[in-house]
Amino acid sequence: MWLFLVFVTLVFGALAGLYAWTVYQKLEESQIGHPRVAELSSIIHEGAMAFLKKEYSWLAPFVGVVAVLLIAAPGLGLGSAFAFVLGALCSATAGWIGMYVATNSNGRTTYAALAGMPAEEKPAAKSSKKSVDLDKAEADSEPVVVPEAPKSEGILSAAAGNALEVAFSGGSIVGMVVVGLGLIGLAFSYLFLNDVTALTAFGMGASSIALFARVGGGIYTKAADVGADLVGKVEAGIPEDDPRNPAVIADNVGDNVGDIAGMGADLFESYVNSILAAMAIGAVYSFTQGGEALGLWGIGFPLFLAAWGVFSSIVGCMMISQKAPYAGKVRAIIGKLPGMDGVVKRIEDGDAAFALRTGTFVAGGLMIAGTFILSILFFFSNSFSVFLSVTSGVIAGIIIGIVTEIYTSGDYRFVQSVAASSDTGAATVILSGLSLGMMSTGIPVLLICLSTLISYYLAGMFGVAVAAVGMLSITGISLSVDAYGPIADNAGGIAEMSELPEGVRKITDHLDAIGNTTAAMGKGLAIGSAALTALALFVAYSQAAHIDKIDIMNPYVIVGLLIGGMLPFIFCSLSIDAVSKAAGSMIEEVRRQFREIPGIMEGKAKPDSNRCVEISTHAALTQMIVPGVMAIAVPVLVGFLLGKEALGGLLGGAIVTGVMMALFMANSGGAWDNAKKYIEEGHFNGKGSPNHAAAVVGDTVGDPFKDTAGPALNILIKLMTVVALVLAPLF
Amino acid sequence: MWLFLVFVTLVFGALAGLYAWTVYQKLEESQIGHPRVAELSSIIHEGAMAFLKKEYSWLAPFVGVVAVLLIAAPGLGLGSAFAFVLGALCSATAGWIGMYVATNSNGRTTYAALAGMPAEEKPAAKSSKKSVDLDKAEADSEPVVVPEAPKSEGILSAAAGNALEVAFSGGSIVGMVVVGLGLIGLAFSYLFLNDVTALTAFGMGASSIALFARVGGGIYTKAADVGADLVGKVEAGIPEDDPRNPAVIADNVGDNVGDIAGMGADLFESYVNSILAAMAIGAVYSFTQGGEALGLWGIGFPLFLAAWGVFSSIVGCMMISQKAPYAGKVRAIIGKLPGMDGVVKRIEDGDAAFALRTGTFVAGGLMIAGTFILSILFFFSNSFSVFLSVTSGVIAGIIIGIVTEIYTSGDYRFVQSVAASSDTGAATVILSGLSLGMMSTGIPVLLICLSTLISYYLAGMFGVAVAAVGMLSITGISLSVDAYGPIADNAGGIAEMSELPEGVRKITDHLDAIGNTTAAMGKGLAIGSAALTALALFVAYSQAAHIDKIDIMNPYVIVGLLIGGMLPFIFCSLSIDAVSKAAGSMIEEVRRQFREIPGIMEGKAKPDSNRCVEISTHAALTQMIVPGVMAIAVPVLVGFLLGKEALGGLLGGAIVTGVMMALFMANSGGAWDNAKKYIEEGHFNGKGSPNHAAAVVGDTVGDPFKDTAGPALNILIKLMTVVALVLAPLF
Repeated sequence: MWLFLVFVTLVFGALAGLYAWTVYQKLEESQIGHPRVAELSSIIHEGAMAFLKKEYSWLAPFVGVVAVLLIAAPGLGLGSAFAFVLGALCSATAGWIGMYVATNSNGRTTYAALAGMPAEEKPAAKSSKKSVDLDKAEADSEPVVVPEAPKSEGILSAAAGNALEVAFSGGSIVGMVVVGLGLIGLAFSYLFLNDVTALTAFGMGASSIALFARVGGGIYTKAADVGADLVGKVEAGIPEDDPRNPAVIADNVGDNVGDIAGMGADLFESYVNSILAAMAIGAVYSFTQGGEALGLWGIGFPLFLAAWGVFSSIVGCMMISQKAPYAGKVRAIIGKLPGMDGVVKRIEDGDAAFALRTGTFVAGGLMIAGTFILSILFFFSNSFSVFLSVTSGVIAGIIIGIVTEIYTSGDYRFVQSVAASSDTGAATVILSGLSLGMMSTGIPVLLICLSTLISYYLAGMFGVAVAAVGMLSITGISLSVDAYGPIADNAGGIAEMSELPEGVRKITDHLDAIGNTTAAMGKGLAIGSAALTALALFVAYSQAAHIDKIDIMNPYVIVGLLIGGMLPFIFCSLSIDAVSKAAGSMIEEVRRQFREIPGIMEGKAKPDSNRCVEISTHAALTQMIVPGVMAIAVPVLVGFLLGKEALGGLLGGAIVTGVMMALFMANSGGAWDNAKKYIEEGHFNGKGSPNHAAAVVGDTVGDPFKDTAGPALNILIKLMTVVALVLAPLF
Repeated sequence: MWLFLVFVTLVFGALAGLYAWTVYQKLEESQIGHPRVAELSSIIHEGAMAFLKKEYSWLAPFVGVVAVLLIAAPGLGLGSAFAFVLGALCSATAGWIGMYVATNSNGRTTYAALAGMPAEEKPAAKSSKKSVDLDKAEADSEPVVVPEAPKSEGILSAAAGNALEVAFSGGSIVGMVVVGLGLIGLAFSYLFLNDVTALTAFGMGASSIALFARVGGGIYTKAADVGADLVGKVEAGIPEDDPRNPAVIADNVGDNVGDIAGMGADLFESYVNSILAAMAIGAVYSFTQGGEALGLWGIGFPLFLAAWGVFSSIVGCMMISQKAPYAGKVRAIIGKLPGMDGVVKRIEDGDAAFALRTGTFVAGGLMIAGTFILSILFFFSNSFSVFLSVTSGVIAGIIIGIVTEIYTSGDYRFVQSVAASSDTGAATVILSGLSLGMMSTGIPVLLICLSTLISYYLAGMFGVAVAAVGMLSITGISLSVDAYGPIADNAGGIAEMSELPEGVRKITDHLDAIGNTTAAMGKGLAIGSAALTALALFVAYSQAAHIDKIDIMNPYVIVGLLIGGMLPFIFCSLSIDAVSKAAGSMIEEVRRQFREIPGIMEGKAKPDSNRCVEISTHAALTQMIVPGVMAIAVPVLVGFLLGKEALGGLLGGAIVTGVMMALFMANSGGAWDNAKKYIEEGHFNGKGSPNHAAAVVGDTVGDPFKDTAGPALNILIKLMTVVALVLAPLF
């Protein structure tokens, strides 16, 4: 029976991989017909891969040491070590493939946008305002081959459609690789161990790599970003992504390192751990007090949910991607459903925003239908309870996403009031952003509480755990939408650096923007699931450690709570400091180059981009160690010194402040970012005004909030909990 | 027997009152011989008292409503309502008297400094650089009578000694009134109720008033401060406390409203609740499992500790104050102790910093000796355990104070590195300050944990509770030192507005500065005790509600934890927003006056200060309602809706994030403040440089952090816990 579970998991994991592979084949076919674009794309590609290679070479010994310790630990041994290493490997591989594909898609996206533009616009811009052209000689020697655009819908639509296709292909490969490797890795671990408890070490491996990748990636990208912006935009007054700025390449590499590799590892970890937590609880759970444990039914259900999620995601992706294999046939089938005819037509006519939204909704709809059927198949008499648990989680996650969007989008009054506070300077921008972030913890926390209570009431802790699985089951498509954003963003950077016509940048900006609302929903699910998964892992820990109560009237538990509550603060402090330090070195370097390299500002001399890449790389790698190791070492220490109840308290405290700080930092950062953009759109005196300068301060403060510390906190709380769970036999 | 406890408590409470009264008589004797100083002093006095009157008239109905609800509540009734009202009254009275005295001391301090200066400096400055003199006619019509200074030690020393005497007299009256009213109020409640549990309503009354006073005062002072600074210093480029600035009077009133009335109510609450928590636990505690409860011994011990603390504080104050009644005799006695001869001589020679430090140490030494003797008297065989519990708490508190000082003083590298980050602008100043604040939670939390574990190990939860009492027992002198700072600060403001010679301002600045290190120690004790008191109250709640476990594996408790953890974030957000809004109106008003009142900038027309005072008052009163009511309503709601275990979880969560956020906000704010001062001292290009501008942004952000939200959080967590404790019979 359990072999059947392994088999199904493997098949659907392979299916995801197969889809990714065929999309990749299609992607490879398209060529970049513009030498400068191709060159920049390959520079970014190489920088990103070099960073990843270095990062993994730093992490390998860490993984090795932990594996040896696991082998040596009484009650754990080879099985746990194997699962741990496999988890780390799968996470690293997912990051690697994702980064490889993404950095191969950005230049293609740029070119697709360029190729889609009407002929008269293309060459004109070549000799436009700017006089800087670093590679004029090379660029002019090869003729620029630009295919004719199909004159169908309208100018933007055709070009945007082309570019969307490429960017989303890249994104969907990242998404499918993550879920595919997740399922395949889980299947293999389960096959070799056949022990749900030991299996959790797979999650520990995934979480460790994720934390390092998030923190390292976050430091890399923000150091480069802040360095490039502060010296380039603010001090030297040159535009964003200007090729004279030596930190621009590092900045573009950083977008991939942080947003692709970091986010991929993050979602891999979330996905895998939500499934593992549900399996661990499902194995011992029974619907009635003292009744028969669900056993394999409880283990199998989350796996089947995930498997069905892969199928749903693939169908969703096929709704969006015009050129994916069989996509046409899938759309034809769906178009025959009642009411879907017009929908499919609108997508095929090239409405990109609508396509992204519909794809996600179709996947979500399929997922809900599948959950309903699976609930009946697995838990006949309790099917409704389980189904409603999952649904409550999914609904809570979606509302969290919407609330997050309302707090952080320039379309609503919150961000607008942050922007308005720029009238009285930077200090009030900071205060209003901080206040907004703190306030934004309210509704999401209440929704998490509500979903926890409902799921628990319906199906106990198993309900809470499967609610988290439900939230993440369509990670395949949510991550595709999420990852396509940075690809489009990067494509814009390349367009700027290659001095392509402005229209190209407009298309990529447009593409970047239309994914945001859809991506916000995915982020809401990620946040909600992080809290629920952490709670489920926490309960699994107390089961594994044979704790019958973690009583907060016990002073050891109180002490644990306080220490646990403190850790996210220390972690944030370390992350922010790391970014500041790294950005500081970057600023010094860019200033030095502007000062010391003659002719750099006139575009006559090339900036030394490599030096900037090195600085970011070095900073990211050296600074990720302390926060990463702290996350693993402190729970272990507390467990040994103060006992397993105190460790339980620590996890509780860390979850509480971790969830709050994650929401606070992500939303403050997001609000500052969009307040700045809102002003740049022309409100409150617009770009270049004192208002804008005040908003830029907010945005800079927000960078490490939303891209380094904030998202890493979601991993932190799960990593600490899964470490406790794996090591439970020791305490 | 219990009447004896009441009697002793009353006697020592009265002793504190008597000391305050006699010092006040002395203070009244000194006259202000400078009309402008006298006038400004009385304007500030009237503004402050008017605010307090208005605030109390807003709070009276609130107190009335809660009292009626308490009478109506099953299981509570008249006794609780009586204690609640008495607690509120005592707190309000302490605030009233403190404010009355402080605003009567500031002008006297200014004049004392002026009078102590050598004759040749006095008239010279009258017609110095500045040409602005609003009340020239009045000022010139009356002859300025300035007594000759005694030419003893040196110029600064004589003047500073004079001023210190007056300012510290004011401070010590505030300190003694707070502890005196605390003990008298407790004694009367105990006398009428003879029920330790019902007595806790006294603490609830004190806490409610404290929260409103802190939040209201914090909003008032920061609105005025930010308004005065942003428009006056930054936009108009006139100096601080310049009489042309209409918000300056409000700013000086605000210093009293926030730092005297707010801090007084805060420490009254801490003092009273630490004693109450220890009494409540002491009544039912037994040293051995199943042994006899301590009963009256457990109730009496904290009261005796507090009583002895009053005596120790008075002796300490007499070491500092030269002119207090019997002070000479007390110093003579202490001077005869081995090694103390030189110490007393140095104090009497006028070394102010040394005097403050020694006074506090003498009080601390007496307190420790007294604790040792009381421990033996009360708990013969367990005396050492109790004594060490108290000592561990006191030591932890002192170290927390020192650590706080290291993180927030310009003498150490942390603040210096915040100042250094001004090289790269405001954003990096903000980031480094935030990071510092988050990091600064580490050591204090570990010390609180350590002290909790040690006290608990030695004498159970009773040990933890008495450790908090020990930390606060010398509140009399710590608050004296604390309160004398704002008096000196205000004296400086008056000197500036009266255009006295620069030397006067130098003296007051010096006085303000030398109290800081000593005050930091007091603040450390306040923070540490807040955490321990909250824990003790929490345990008392679980006793009162008959909860046998608050298990964080129970989803209701988890939900409680999450909601509780969220509340401090919402609370901070509301406070910061309130300050921003109020500051916004103030900025508009000051700008309007500068624009619309002709001749205001030339000093020919008087600014409309009253309008600014009204704005601050109105903002403070309207904005304090929501956060204050939330703190009381949410625990009640959760208790009724989700049950008493969930309420326990809520309290736990609130304590955890409350302690972290309080440390974070207070220390970030303190660090920004001192980083700005550090730059003003001439480092990093000094005043007026871009570095300074960046540091001012940090300071402005820090204002609501350190003076509104941060300190209020310490009250918030205790208020919520004591509300739960009082209402425990209902759940």
